[in-house]
Amino acid sequence: MSTARFYHAGCSVCISAEQTLLNLLDPALKVEVVHLGEQPQRIAEAELAGVKSVPAFVHDDQVLHLNFGASIDDLK
Amino acid sequence: MSTARFYHAGCSVCISAEQTLLNLLDPALKVEVVHLGEQPQRIAEAELAGVKSVPAFVHDDQVLHLNFGASIDDLK
Repeated sequence: MSTARFYHAGCSVCISAEQTLLNLLDPALKVEVVHLGEQPQRIAEAELAGVKSVPAFVHDDQVLHLNFGASIDDLK
Repeated sequence: MSTARFYHAGCSVCISAEQTLLNLLDPALKVEVVHLGEQPQRIAEAELAGVKSVPAFVHDDQVLHLNFGASIDDLK
């Protein structure tokens, strides 16, 4: 099972979604958590993956936008 | 691990989110998939759980709205 990425920006919506989702995922799945507020150099990578807002979960070119914390444009 | 519910309405956004998410969840988690288009009598239950749009995933009073397929108001 490949690695997934969870992009967030530290907002309360992000943290809540992270806690809900990550606890329920298959323990065999590796998830890299990327804080775009702290790692703005990775915003371009997130956009390329199709991320429009955070929190977002990316796996195998599939993007799940979870609730709505912030637009990725607002993180730039 | 308690049961989760995945509410959808058969739309392409719903099906795509379902395939992405359900494959990655912990195999120990039971997920009831509820098609609100086919079971409109369960719309009230979904709303009570906090579902505003589908697809949505509910677990332990936490709601994750995944991408955006349709507003729950449009399913009534």
